[in-house]
Amino acid sequence: MAVYTEVSDEELESFVAEYEIGELSACKGIAEGVENSNFLLQTDRGIYILTIYEKRVSAADLPFFLGLMDHLAARGVPCPTPVHGRDGAALRRLAGKPAAIVTFLRGIWPRRLTPQHCAELGAGMAAMHLAGRDFPIRRPNNLSLAGWKPLIDATAPRADEVAPGLAGELAAEYEVLARDWPAALPAGVIHADLFPDNVFFHHDRLSGLIDFYFACNDALAYDLAVCLNAWCFEREGEFNITKARRLVTAYREVREIEPAEIAAMPRLARGAALRFLLTRLYDWLNQVDGALVKPKDPLEYLTKLRFHRQVGGPGAYGLD
Amino acid sequence: MAVYTEVSDEELESFVAEYEIGELSACKGIAEGVENSNFLLQTDRGIYILTIYEKRVSAADLPFFLGLMDHLAARGVPCPTPVHGRDGAALRRLAGKPAAIVTFLRGIWPRRLTPQHCAELGAGMAAMHLAGRDFPIRRPNNLSLAGWKPLIDATAPRADEVAPGLAGELAAEYEVLARDWPAALPAGVIHADLFPDNVFFHHDRLSGLIDFYFACNDALAYDLAVCLNAWCFEREGEFNITKARRLVTAYREVREIEPAEIAAMPRLARGAALRFLLTRLYDWLNQVDGALVKPKDPLEYLTKLRFHRQVGGPGAYGLD
Repeated sequence: MAVYTEVSDEELESFVAEYEIGELSACKGIAEGVENSNFLLQTDRGIYILTIYEKRVSAADLPFFLGLMDHLAARGVPCPTPVHGRDGAALRRLAGKPAAIVTFLRGIWPRRLTPQHCAELGAGMAAMHLAGRDFPIRRPNNLSLAGWKPLIDATAPRADEVAPGLAGELAAEYEVLARDWPAALPAGVIHADLFPDNVFFHHDRLSGLIDFYFACNDALAYDLAVCLNAWCFEREGEFNITKARRLVTAYREVREIEPAEIAAMPRLARGAALRFLLTRLYDWLNQVDGALVKPKDPLEYLTKLRFHRQVGGPGAYGLD
Repeated sequence: MAVYTEVSDEELESFVAEYEIGELSACKGIAEGVENSNFLLQTDRGIYILTIYEKRVSAADLPFFLGLMDHLAARGVPCPTPVHGRDGAALRRLAGKPAAIVTFLRGIWPRRLTPQHCAELGAGMAAMHLAGRDFPIRRPNNLSLAGWKPLIDATAPRADEVAPGLAGELAAEYEVLARDWPAALPAGVIHADLFPDNVFFHHDRLSGLIDFYFACNDALAYDLAVCLNAWCFEREGEFNITKARRLVTAYREVREIEPAEIAAMPRLARGAALRFLLTRLYDWLNQVDGALVKPKDPLEYLTKLRFHRQVGGPGAYGLD
């Protein structure tokens, strides 16, 4: 939940006047999104989302993110479409920061996840992977293997405050994954952060994918691994194979999962768990006084990591 | 900025189905409002605000607040109108807490205050005071004189951490005000918290008064005193008499200010400054770990209190 930047009414009105979206009639800060400031704009033509990019998002990456949303939306992926100003530009500046207006998607993100949600997600993610194939801009995944080491080093001195032995466990895990992290899998544009609050549903059908600000080029199967972590565990840490099976089965109906991807899944799932464990641990240990966002519990991902470490093979994820 | 209660999609859908407001198509938490959780609902009929009342608002007071909004809206005051469910009830329960849906008001609260805003506010407040005259439910002002003493006592041990000598200054101020706090002024329903973020404008005209959760019965002129504090000081603490004059002059064009109210204004302004100084100081000294709301600086109101203490008379506020 976040609004980090205050915008004066005059600034906002002149900003909106640079677009063909009608006249502004209301603006509300939205209590969603950790990285940026988001506002819901009402105009006489409809509802839009205004995002002001805060410093956690690199300005150099914005053409990738906005271009990707344009690209995917044009190919039928239900994602926010950047609105271009009268001068053609989608990326502008407001209150001294980069800013963009995108279309508003209907739907609500699911608080209680069902197998049906997982199936919708699988099919939607596979369609996004196919639609992204000919997107020309590239962006590396900064939070894959090479990005984990600095987080392990930065958290090592105090990780054991969060769980006894955690620093050693993280270092050992990294060593194992670094030894044979899957390379040469089918790659393309992945979302890399398809958590439930980034996926909207309307009448139990997927109606929107949002928040592309971790999107990058990487193994497509890694996106599936992130979702196995984010969608298929129950509250007490139990893995729900019914949800996993619905997720991967629906994915395969849209895009074939190759044998090498299937074989790599346990390792990708460990890597994805480690990635979220590390960023949550880092944020937990580096809480800012007076911050508006409560850091998420890193230990949830330690439980998940340990689950993936002991699985017998891809069958544990419904991948036979 | 606040969403304290998470609502599941099923709960929300069945809650919305109790109203004649069409079918839910989107829901966003709003980053506004310190006391309650607020959500913007989009349905196929329009936009609404859903409020879930958190523990800072007493459930026993909700019939007063919702009844007042109904009463004022019916008399043309631009305020949120409670939507009644199919069974006629406006106050319902959601996620185990009291909840209500109100209409959405267009407009934006002003970040940079102009004398024109102050004039609109004065006229709008006076019209609200007139419209409230025949509202039948009563609610005392818990944050007037009798409510300040417990706050002074609770903050006394640590007030000097915020400013040297503050505890003594607050106690002395209370003694002065308690000695002859204005009684027997024209009274009625006041908003009691008409800060800029509770007043919407559209095209420089007042388009909405929101957040009636401090409304109560008290001297009408006390509402003016709150606004002199909240709208007529500049950032560095200077009092802007042009804004004050526009505020009170526009008020008087709608409702006459009586000589006793004029004479009492310096004292009412001191009391209003003390009231916000005390609640901010209390919140400052009692910050909750991990709270989502940053406490406001109490010292802003110490500056204002000291200004009011040295004014020569009501003329300082443009009241001649």
